[in-house]
Amino acid sequence: MSKSPEEEHPQKAFGWAARDASGILSPFNFSRRANEDDDVTVKILYCGICHGDLHYVKNEFGHSSYPLVPGHEITGIVTAVGPKVEKFKVGDHAGVAPLVRSCRACNNCNQGLENYCPGAVSAFNAIDHDGTRTYGGYSDIIVVNQHYVIRFPNSLPLDKGTPLLCAGITVYSPMKYYGLCGPGTRLGVVGLGGLGHVAVKFAKAFGMKVTVISTSPSKGKEAIERLGADSFLVSSDSEQMKAAMGTLDGILDTVSAFHPISPLIDLLTTNGKLILLGAPEKPLELSVFPLLMGRKLVGGSGIGGMREIQEMMDFAGAHNISADTEIIPMDYVNTALDRLARGDVRYRFVIDVGTTLTT
Amino acid sequence: MSKSPEEEHPQKAFGWAARDASGILSPFNFSRRANEDDDVTVKILYCGICHGDLHYVKNEFGHSSYPLVPGHEITGIVTAVGPKVEKFKVGDHAGVAPLVRSCRACNNCNQGLENYCPGAVSAFNAIDHDGTRTYGGYSDIIVVNQHYVIRFPNSLPLDKGTPLLCAGITVYSPMKYYGLCGPGTRLGVVGLGGLGHVAVKFAKAFGMKVTVISTSPSKGKEAIERLGADSFLVSSDSEQMKAAMGTLDGILDTVSAFHPISPLIDLLTTNGKLILLGAPEKPLELSVFPLLMGRKLVGGSGIGGMREIQEMMDFAGAHNISADTEIIPMDYVNTALDRLARGDVRYRFVIDVGTTLTT
Repeated sequence: MSKSPEEEHPQKAFGWAARDASGILSPFNFSRRANEDDDVTVKILYCGICHGDLHYVKNEFGHSSYPLVPGHEITGIVTAVGPKVEKFKVGDHAGVAPLVRSCRACNNCNQGLENYCPGAVSAFNAIDHDGTRTYGGYSDIIVVNQHYVIRFPNSLPLDKGTPLLCAGITVYSPMKYYGLCGPGTRLGVVGLGGLGHVAVKFAKAFGMKVTVISTSPSKGKEAIERLGADSFLVSSDSEQMKAAMGTLDGILDTVSAFHPISPLIDLLTTNGKLILLGAPEKPLELSVFPLLMGRKLVGGSGIGGMREIQEMMDFAGAHNISADTEIIPMDYVNTALDRLARGDVRYRFVIDVGTTLTT
Repeated sequence: MSKSPEEEHPQKAFGWAARDASGILSPFNFSRRANEDDDVTVKILYCGICHGDLHYVKNEFGHSSYPLVPGHEITGIVTAVGPKVEKFKVGDHAGVAPLVRSCRACNNCNQGLENYCPGAVSAFNAIDHDGTRTYGGYSDIIVVNQHYVIRFPNSLPLDKGTPLLCAGITVYSPMKYYGLCGPGTRLGVVGLGGLGHVAVKFAKAFGMKVTVISTSPSKGKEAIERLGADSFLVSSDSEQMKAAMGTLDGILDTVSAFHPISPLIDLLTTNGKLILLGAPEKPLELSVFPLLMGRKLVGGSGIGGMREIQEMMDFAGAHNISADTEIIPMDYVNTALDRLARGDVRYRFVIDVGTTLTT
């Protein structure tokens, strides 16, 4: 019989876990492995609440295993390093992103695309190399191989920087891969949430011309005045959408609910690219003729590889990019998840783990 | 009142036209304009029968205007040139592709992408700059601005080369644009018809590894033995498809009927590209998750610009690439269209206009 989560490893750990598909979190004692040669132990100070956390605690993808400690936008302080760790020393600021292991042998890994490795291990709700489950960042400590730990720029605040480890890389990686990062490039951002608002910030840092596209007219003012977007489109306003046809080089679509994409494809110019970052449960409808007539494409992208996450964090540090956050105590997490489900956050909840997680 | 097709221009012309949505063609007297300064008059020797011709004669796109003379894979001999024509002299072999005019001023035209110009004029069923209708290549002569006339390589036979002017560029252009043309790149070709069979030939000339994917097991032998494909997949064979998952860098999908694309996306490796070249009437179903998990894309492409059509023809000439054709007399055209609708041609009908079109 396998050992209990509390007994299976030597380092005591404590966090909050969902116990079933109700998704309600409560205090949870478990354990973390001792540092292996290449491992880093991080005392967690902050953890962002990603929309993915909500899907997993409620078992919306159908493969959640409980108890489930969510959280994969993790920042903290290195408290111990294994004997072969050269990248970190005790006291360093460090970040942990959605990925904590991969095979290091496949084509994807060899190209620095560990995120597309078939053997990739997620920060929570996954099985690690030793057969034990991974638990995420709604907890006091985490032990991760140094390859999957990010050097956190000293110029960035840990709390507001922590959401970049998932939300940031999820928008940064497709901008780079699909060539939507040049000065003057016209980018649309659909959905002004955790991903969308940092997409606007990165795009402006790249010198792009940014149009935010949203169903909520109420977001127009802050998109432009607070986040620095150049223009705003209400997607339900057919006149506005018609007037903007053919004006965008690319669109990052952060919406994870089912929605029509033809009106977005119509906004693209020749060679335009619609990049989907959210995964609706049912298939989208794809009209092919507009793709042929303008050599347009619909692409996907999922987080990024370790090298690119580091690049993104360094870029954020150099350009002073961080998330707009609402910092919450640990015991507010269930309320925060409810509010997130209603879209009631501008734009990312971050749990102040270091101060408020108490046994 | 506007003049009749026979009287509106000074050069007498003769061809075969559909008169209504029955799509049945019959002899038709009309006229062509006198050469303008930059115009070339071409005596038509051969014209390929593209699947698009079939759609148009039967008004399947809903905007056909009759009488309609189809045909946009045209080759022949230059018989007269306007005073400013420098590109051609009388007696030259020349080709005319699906496009006979564009605005020459927009961003697309400035980049050599006349095919995506909003003011592009098609070789038939369109309105030209003088307000008269365009008539295609199922006819004895055509008058076209030299910018839209292709120098036909002397090393290629006119009859077997003529389908390249549409089928060839339709597959060549996306190979180049989407980076599916490098030696060793693994390309899938879905559908072994007019487009698919020349896609295999271009891909092999680029040094690619080619897999033909078809619903017809009967096409396997000729795909490999006759066309030189490296392997063959029967798309309805789930075992074969499963074994081939993740093995292709890109796919050219030439099917214009509604069909599932998820099994094709599954065949792609990380960063794989599914390029759609046919336009099904109803939207395809696009499952987003597989795009995110492998940074895959679904793109479109439609013919190519004039510079690239010339490049493609020159490449075909240098590599001895032509279509597999069934040469038919003009009065067989209605039977040929019926057979084409049933997929009964390997792989392109070409009308021997020069010898068999008689008044």
